[in-house]
Amino acid sequence: MKKADKLLIRALKGETLKSPPIWLMRQAGRYLPEYRGTRAAAGSFLDLCYNPMLATEVTLQPIRRFGFDAAILFSDILVVADALGQKVGFEEGRGPVLEALKDGKDLAQLGLGKFHQHLGPVYETVSRLRADLPKETTLIGFAGAPWTVASYMIEGGSSRDFSKAKSWMYGRQQDFAALIALLVEATSQYLIQQVEAGAEVLQLFDSWAGTLAHNDMRLFSLEPTRQIVANVRAVHPEIPIILFPRGVGAGYLDFAEAGVFSALSLDQSVPLAWARDQLQPRVALQGNLDPQLLVAGGRALRFGVGHILNRLGKKRFIFNLGHGIVPETPPEHVAELVKLVREGAG
Amino acid sequence: MKKADKLLIRALKGETLKSPPIWLMRQAGRYLPEYRGTRAAAGSFLDLCYNPMLATEVTLQPIRRFGFDAAILFSDILVVADALGQKVGFEEGRGPVLEALKDGKDLAQLGLGKFHQHLGPVYETVSRLRADLPKETTLIGFAGAPWTVASYMIEGGSSRDFSKAKSWMYGRQQDFAALIALLVEATSQYLIQQVEAGAEVLQLFDSWAGTLAHNDMRLFSLEPTRQIVANVRAVHPEIPIILFPRGVGAGYLDFAEAGVFSALSLDQSVPLAWARDQLQPRVALQGNLDPQLLVAGGRALRFGVGHILNRLGKKRFIFNLGHGIVPETPPEHVAELVKLVREGAG
Repeated sequence: MKKADKLLIRALKGETLKSPPIWLMRQAGRYLPEYRGTRAAAGSFLDLCYNPMLATEVTLQPIRRFGFDAAILFSDILVVADALGQKVGFEEGRGPVLEALKDGKDLAQLGLGKFHQHLGPVYETVSRLRADLPKETTLIGFAGAPWTVASYMIEGGSSRDFSKAKSWMYGRQQDFAALIALLVEATSQYLIQQVEAGAEVLQLFDSWAGTLAHNDMRLFSLEPTRQIVANVRAVHPEIPIILFPRGVGAGYLDFAEAGVFSALSLDQSVPLAWARDQLQPRVALQGNLDPQLLVAGGRALRFGVGHILNRLGKKRFIFNLGHGIVPETPPEHVAELVKLVREGAG
Repeated sequence: MKKADKLLIRALKGETLKSPPIWLMRQAGRYLPEYRGTRAAAGSFLDLCYNPMLATEVTLQPIRRFGFDAAILFSDILVVADALGQKVGFEEGRGPVLEALKDGKDLAQLGLGKFHQHLGPVYETVSRLRADLPKETTLIGFAGAPWTVASYMIEGGSSRDFSKAKSWMYGRQQDFAALIALLVEATSQYLIQQVEAGAEVLQLFDSWAGTLAHNDMRLFSLEPTRQIVANVRAVHPEIPIILFPRGVGAGYLDFAEAGVFSALSLDQSVPLAWARDQLQPRVALQGNLDPQLLVAGGRALRFGVGHILNRLGKKRFIFNLGHGIVPETPPEHVAELVKLVREGAG
């Protein structure tokens, strides 16, 4: 172990630490007034993602304010769909809106032809961040996992029951397999470029993995993410990769047993003692405070933090939320959380 | 064991069967043309729930068509909130809309004063069903679990992140505890009356249990449902009670260990081999086909059914979905499913 390793890297390597590293999903976002200021100046949400100067600025805002141990590239999982040639937009209060893929013909219009050119500004943001971040802060690059991105591409946006995406999965198996394969290839290349631009750790978000039956979860969440890890590690053998297969419940065991992920990010439903006994011996863990506790603050927050620290503790653990920060979160509660984690509350 | 026991009761008692009993959550519903006909004649959705003749009719429709082993009372989990004095409505395409509870003062307006009078038509529906159902069909009564019903009462409808309900849970602990206690009492009484009207099995739906951190899940899903079971069994010691704590993942272990539920209904994310090894030795199971497989039909459906039957099999098992039937489901796929399960597909 090199003395110079940053705290997050040391946690991923299995060192016993005084207190775990902390960063929060969606730590750059609407709960911060300075974010809302930059966002208003940027034009559309995608304009912000593709503007290296502004995307760097919003990534740095929470680091300046809270001194998190990691900064995560400000971007969106759907830039991959956008860069493959699908029309992607974001509507206030509605979230992402895509021109949904209807069939294999729509799918055939997509491709890697202009992929890296399109994503050039993202790679530039990564480079700028690597230069601008404090030396103790780890830079995390990220992408959406194939099933989650595919679900938006087929549904055309958020979904309640994923009926269109699953109608591909079950009824257009070849088209669905082709889409997943395209996303595995695109996502692998995208992440490799992020590493080359300066990302030190990667995270894959499979936000909708928990909507799948277990067998489909193995086929369409575990397998594609495992392939991406293999592809990225073929070029960068040492790169740590964290996976967030949200909502998979006991299926977290499958991901732990796969033996390829550097860490698993846990949603808040995962029982802490179970995670400690069944998962942590095999893989580092990240999580899993209920984001609504960060809205509540006070005693409830202190209790929740202590509960997690007592169980998942000081080794192979990164403190985070079970899902992203919500806009109503008071920034002073975030400051309080960082203090609690560093003091080892509980 | 009495020879006269119905198939569903025999499964709950742990008998080894040739094939498992089958019924489906939301088996009476919009996917059936005859339901849409009755629904159109009924007025509002709640009018249908409170009309014993029509509610009986829609409950019987899927039994006539498919010969399921159980009929579940046609009603809605929110009639309890309605009967406690909260204004509840349903809007097409939007779901339930309630006059949300803002604070303890709103809560103090609710009470059990007119509760049973209000729910009289539901009890009458149960009586009619018991008289009208084929002798081999088990009649299931049901209610929502306290956390799930409370979340609608505080949020005023469906929610994405349960921020209002959790702001009570974390910041208005006394009001929240009072609401849960009221719902435990009301739900216990409601279920006792359903048994007295003729329900042979009860099911509690905790549809949003999976949104809770594990510790909160124990406090606000496991504890209240355990109390309801105790209250109902104090009057009807033999009544089987199935719980559906949707999305709790590895938390299903807690419910199995509680030792009070007759069966646990599994959502589709639960790994079958894990459920067989960790849960089924302790409790009967129900589930967990992805409802979208029933939309897809064909080979994918056959494979999914075989997969479940091979693992959860012939003992302590009730075939069902992992969530309710969706409106796009072709009725002929449901008929095919019943055939597959009875033939032991796979």
